[in-house]
Amino acid sequence: MSQSPPAHTQPRPPPRPIVTLTTDFGTRDSYVSVMKAVLLRHCPEARLIDVTHDLPRHDILCGSITLERAIDGFPPGSVHLAVVDPGVGTDRRILVTEINRQTVVCPDNGLITWPWRRLGPARSHELTWRPRGATSATFHGRDILAPAAGMLAAGTPLSELARPIDDPVLLDIAPALEFPARAKVIHIDHFGNATTNLSHEVLASERVHSVRVKGRTIGKVRRTYWDVAPGKPLALIGSSGLLEIAVRDGSAAEDLKIRVGDEVEVE
Amino acid sequence: MSQSPPAHTQPRPPPRPIVTLTTDFGTRDSYVSVMKAVLLRHCPEARLIDVTHDLPRHDILCGSITLERAIDGFPPGSVHLAVVDPGVGTDRRILVTEINRQTVVCPDNGLITWPWRRLGPARSHELTWRPRGATSATFHGRDILAPAAGMLAAGTPLSELARPIDDPVLLDIAPALEFPARAKVIHIDHFGNATTNLSHEVLASERVHSVRVKGRTIGKVRRTYWDVAPGKPLALIGSSGLLEIAVRDGSAAEDLKIRVGDEVEVE
Amino acid sequence: MSQSPPAHTQPRPPPRPIVTLTTDFGTRDSYVSVMKAVLLRHCPEARLIDVTHDLPRHDILCGSITLERAIDGFPPGSVHLAVVDPGVGTDRRILVTEINRQTVVCPDNGLITWPWRRLGPARSHELTWRPRGATSATFHGRDILAPAAGMLAAGTPLSELARPIDDPVLLDIAPALEFPARAKVIHIDHFGNATTNLSHEVLASERVHSVRVKGRTIGKVRRTYWDVAPGKPLALIGSSGLLEIAVRDGSAAEDLKIRVGDEVEVE
Repeated sequence: MSQSPPAHTQPRPPPRPIVTLTTDFGTRDSYVSVMKAVLLRHCPEARLIDVTHDLPRHDILCGSITLERAIDGFPPGSVHLAVVDPGVGTDRRILVTEINRQTVVCPDNGLITWPWRRLGPARSHELTWRPRGATSATFHGRDILAPAAGMLAAGTPLSELARPIDDPVLLDIAPALEFPARAKVIHIDHFGNATTNLSHEVLASERVHSVRVKGRTIGKVRRTYWDVAPGKPLALIGSSGLLEIAVRDGSAAEDLKIRVGDEVEVE
Repeated sequence: MSQSPPAHTQPRPPPRPIVTLTTDFGTRDSYVSVMKAVLLRHCPEARLIDVTHDLPRHDILCGSITLERAIDGFPPGSVHLAVVDPGVGTDRRILVTEINRQTVVCPDNGLITWPWRRLGPARSHELTWRPRGATSATFHGRDILAPAAGMLAAGTPLSELARPIDDPVLLDIAPALEFPARAKVIHIDHFGNATTNLSHEVLASERVHSVRVKGRTIGKVRRTYWDVAPGKPLALIGSSGLLEIAVRDGSAAEDLKIRVGDEVEVE
Repeated sequence: MSQSPPAHTQPRPPPRPIVTLTTDFGTRDSYVSVMKAVLLRHCPEARLIDVTHDLPRHDILCGSITLERAIDGFPPGSVHLAVVDPGVGTDRRILVTEINRQTVVCPDNGLITWPWRRLGPARSHELTWRPRGATSATFHGRDILAPAAGMLAAGTPLSELARPIDDPVLLDIAPALEFPARAKVIHIDHFGNATTNLSHEVLASERVHSVRVKGRTIGKVRRTYWDVAPGKPLALIGSSGLLEIAVRDGSAAEDLKIRVGDEVEVE
């Protein structure tokens, strides 16, 4: 017999490579779509998944927290393209970072910080590849980072595009490791929930008596929003595994005036 | 002859399963992308289509209207994942509903109401499947609903994941069936058009003399926006087949101060 | 030997057709997803890429500028569906335009202007195809334009759907071709950068001494944002190849009160 095998015994095609996008480009202009066109040119099979394009403009910390969440959610082999790039057009480096068996392409301005601290060990490289011909001085996302991400997703070996470095730019932010903790608010989400840098692992073996923020005692750590009355604040472990401050049926950011950087005392 | 057939005679591959997403998660965070990662893990071939993630927070009615429109537009076999879930973390049930030869996965909090009323008959099931290991108490969209939707899209029989029920939670809202009608505004869209619960079928055999809302007489039912002068209000049958109040080149919501729940008299 | 060839020598499948979407529909409703369902029905293999759905309502000029950028970024064979359609329901024509070896489907209301002026030569056709049965008078995007775009993406010959015309509606806007130039601001982007209608080609052979806008002298043309101090305005060639007015780490639109239509003097 020499026929091709019936369909159900044929080997399944390999999964199409996933490429995610995280930017502060907004959704009003064509910028994001044009980056996607470039990605598809270099990797026609790519599955393109938007993480967000609504990062506050030039907010590297917010981008870093959001990027970490995306990396944590995606499977090995995924490529993450992240562009918050106030230094575009300068000689700031472009990073390619291997982390969590995934690959991140982003400017070397601290965007990689939170993935590096929370999902490491990681290995960073400086992108040495540059396109032939002229590039825009204002849109490296399209001209340099997207082609690199596309090539990596298509299987080009990292060593052909980048060289190892050991000094990526990292922001001055890290998970809180001690208990009792002076934690910090590192992110406010769409619902107004305030995420801190305090991981559930630190709390797991501790009995938390009190969470305090902005001079207000929130009480102990709850399991769900429904453990307090409507309109009341609470502390709980959020879906990222970090301590969060929330208000049931409300917004911690608005109702408690919590901002990124605020201190949270946990005893 | 024992060669594989030429490409143009090979059977076409089956269409890839469609999975839509309708949430109030917003587009600033990584939540939506992480649900997509889970969907792709369970159904690598899925086509993921965003309906919206900009539903007003916890607005189950708005989600229900929007979900119905999506179901109506998609072909048989589509799977719809809808998450507006103020009760996340409680023991509210999770529904799997077969309707219009499609499948809807959503919390059992009334989200299914408008599809149920308008596109039924429908059959609801309670999702009994739960993931092994710990789940977040705040993100069942990622941990329970998305895996279920992905498995259903990939062909897992519904009977392996859920058991039939006959008492899904339904909101107190229904299509207006009588004429003359006291209809209600059930949705305000991006353009400020106000959709009512009065279907064109009820109007088809009737001669409408007058549409009135907020003490204002709008006149008869028109065919297009251009049937009135710029800035003038009008009533017409919208793309959903329901009576709508609009303002040509304006916004009925803003110009006429119309809100969801307002009464519309049609004689 | 009569076995099928090993995988690596099999011909690669043809790239899946790209269809982009550019509308003023917003992202709160199901409108966009329903258009995508129609596109997939007519072209199951289509890759759907959102350009934007956040165009200001009925802003044909903004849509035209955005559409041109998208066309410029995508490869030959792409199909672009653009819907800003205040005249929906009237007898305004629907255009199919071949340009840049790509195809654009849009209402004949001036949306095609900027691609026509900047990426031409182009050839326009009037869509003569109409669906059997009733169509909505308010949602031609779903009922007429999306099916047409889907059929074209799937390979239906243009001649079966449309007839050539030579008088598409064009807005009164064109690239500035002379130097010194009285250019105009044609677009404000997400970052508040103000794009003008003056192309880098006009400037290439000229020495620009002075850019002035709103009575303010901005100075010469810079290469990157970093060539001026934070908070300072500058002129530079943007990623579209057009002269832009920007403010480093700020917003030209907000900080300089620049609006579309403002004059920019370049000497």
